[in-house]
Amino acid sequence: MRTQVAIIGGGPSGLLLSQLLNKAGIATVVLERKSRDYVLSRIRAGVLETGAADLIRAAGAGTRMDREGHLHDGCYLASNGRMFHVDFKGSCGKQVMVYGQTEVTKDLYDAQDAIGATVIHGAEEVALHDLTSDAPYVSYTVNGAAHRLGCDFVAGCDGFHGVSRPSMPAEVRREYEKVYPFGWLGILSRTPPVEHELIYAAHDRGFALASMRHAMLSRYYIQVPLTDTVEDWSDEAFWAEFRRRMPEAVAARLVTGPSIEKSIAPLRSFVTEPMRWGRLFLCGDAAHIVPPTGAKGLNLAASDVHYLYEGLVQHYRQNQSAGIDAYSQRALARIWQAMRFSWSLTTMMHRFPGASDYDRRMQDSELAQLETNPVARRLMAENYTGLPY
Amino acid sequence: MRTQVAIIGGGPSGLLLSQLLNKAGIATVVLERKSRDYVLSRIRAGVLETGAADLIRAAGAGTRMDREGHLHDGCYLASNGRMFHVDFKGSCGKQVMVYGQTEVTKDLYDAQDAIGATVIHGAEEVALHDLTSDAPYVSYTVNGAAHRLGCDFVAGCDGFHGVSRPSMPAEVRREYEKVYPFGWLGILSRTPPVEHELIYAAHDRGFALASMRHAMLSRYYIQVPLTDTVEDWSDEAFWAEFRRRMPEAVAARLVTGPSIEKSIAPLRSFVTEPMRWGRLFLCGDAAHIVPPTGAKGLNLAASDVHYLYEGLVQHYRQNQSAGIDAYSQRALARIWQAMRFSWSLTTMMHRFPGASDYDRRMQDSELAQLETNPVARRLMAENYTGLPY
Repeated sequence: MRTQVAIIGGGPSGLLLSQLLNKAGIATVVLERKSRDYVLSRIRAGVLETGAADLIRAAGAGTRMDREGHLHDGCYLASNGRMFHVDFKGSCGKQVMVYGQTEVTKDLYDAQDAIGATVIHGAEEVALHDLTSDAPYVSYTVNGAAHRLGCDFVAGCDGFHGVSRPSMPAEVRREYEKVYPFGWLGILSRTPPVEHELIYAAHDRGFALASMRHAMLSRYYIQVPLTDTVEDWSDEAFWAEFRRRMPEAVAARLVTGPSIEKSIAPLRSFVTEPMRWGRLFLCGDAAHIVPPTGAKGLNLAASDVHYLYEGLVQHYRQNQSAGIDAYSQRALARIWQAMRFSWSLTTMMHRFPGASDYDRRMQDSELAQLETNPVARRLMAENYTGLPY
Repeated sequence: MRTQVAIIGGGPSGLLLSQLLNKAGIATVVLERKSRDYVLSRIRAGVLETGAADLIRAAGAGTRMDREGHLHDGCYLASNGRMFHVDFKGSCGKQVMVYGQTEVTKDLYDAQDAIGATVIHGAEEVALHDLTSDAPYVSYTVNGAAHRLGCDFVAGCDGFHGVSRPSMPAEVRREYEKVYPFGWLGILSRTPPVEHELIYAAHDRGFALASMRHAMLSRYYIQVPLTDTVEDWSDEAFWAEFRRRMPEAVAARLVTGPSIEKSIAPLRSFVTEPMRWGRLFLCGDAAHIVPPTGAKGLNLAASDVHYLYEGLVQHYRQNQSAGIDAYSQRALARIWQAMRFSWSLTTMMHRFPGASDYDRRMQDSELAQLETNPVARRLMAENYTGLPY
């Protein structure tokens, strides 16, 4: 089998790239190790930047998002009981779209179906070959049968644990990592969200976040030590702790219910450079991981897809390599700004073991600057709703 | 002897407060341990916020500052060779006044002389008494002879090592401190400044700052380990290291000369709360220390003086205590924002022992945000030129 762009990974970044390329007349094959149902069972973030939402629309997969998603004008920041609003729309004219990543992925699969794109599930033992030649290829097996996919380019959209990044020799990669000394315990419950926008709450007992997927599906988180397990936290214990960390007025109107999902996620910042090696291009989690604070994960995958899509279209339509040659640099410039934003929001809002009283006052002072200075709120709004591509 | 406001310390904050109060018809006595010549031999920072310069003018001590000082529209930030401008005036409409603290102090002494204010030098064994009564007093000796100064209020303007702060019982004080793991080696030389505005330079070898006092007096600094001593640094070694850390074009036009002063200062952030206890009010370094990055030291002393002056005038003219009752809270709100600013500028520009590659990229990304985003530059400009009183 042969295609123009072999896409490793059938998550949202691979599907979005495939969808955009197909619509531009460029042939793709998506290889995904898991089943479609498995991919659609993964629960991820649900806040889309303006640019990411536009890209989903451009891919022809935005109809349900625009019908069922919720545009948020801002978010709330709270600290030990006080709460204030950051007005994104009023500050910088932009909003964010609250629409679960699972739904985005489902819509992209439906869109791929509609245009007859090729997505191969159950692709195992994927290996990338001859990436620095003009004729790279991908070998894989399905149900034990060996296959070979020839291509012009390989897009590595297979996440942090995928095969794409390690297919670049270690000596050309430079990796940057920060592991945060805590995790997020998250639950999903079929309850009305406590607030119509997100609430990020700093508290002496640790960070908490009130988020949502839609009008009857809430997503709440609390900061927990990395040594905690899900078994340590009954629903009752979660709700009690979550209430303690929210401002009183918020806690008072919280509607609780049984958790339908409960998990603990570690927080990590990770970037690999460069994002291109020969004919291999890394996209999304394959190249970088952000902590969930600020919800940049899917949004960064979308901006990578945007730059790579532009470069590939330029290559195929105009026979020019400027776009793909600049891919790594353009993508990384934006990625580092999002890494900076999610790191600084994480640093401002969480309790760090060993932090001094002075460190704590610096966190309070960062929040006070946001509360009192409209220019600081505008800077946050620009970063939160997404820097321009 | 009796006065209305006893002012402990004849540095710029004590003199500025004395001058403003006298002009408002409120009697003061300033007690200073050292001689006038000694006070005027101390070399300190030289960048005044708009508000501090206005306050010096309001005190009738701004004539020479306005004649000899230099208004700067912005500053430069450099990082490993790249350099860009932050336009304060264009971003937020404000400038800073470059005029040495020594000169400010001299002008304030002259102004005090002109109005016949009482400044007592050589005041030793200063002790504050009955601070929570309606009749506090200060005891001190001059040349071994004991004196007593009765007063309504005591203003503690005697710096970090002065007697005022420890005169508040330890149990009412809460102190916040951060000690940075490096110092600044600074030299003063009779050479033309390498640039007409300040250059803050981050570099793999450590921070460097190109500053000045006037057209033929330059003040340059480099970050050094705390274990270094002045004896470790010949003038030649200083200039060579300073050149290495500046962008090439700057290094190429640097004019060097013999140092006329050379010293190493540690960097510290310190705040004590509250700033009032009974009839004692702390002002300036007596209550807080900032690292020199961003030059907030004298400017914070000036904002403290502003709030205290307003409160005391309200007390004497309208017999209302709202202003002095709110002093600590109002002063501290602004102080914490300046602490935040000088801490974040210090954190962004210096090399920290043990910093990871990721930490370094966060510093680069903060600088990149300033370079690429006018909103980030405006936020810096507002903080640098001084938040409103």
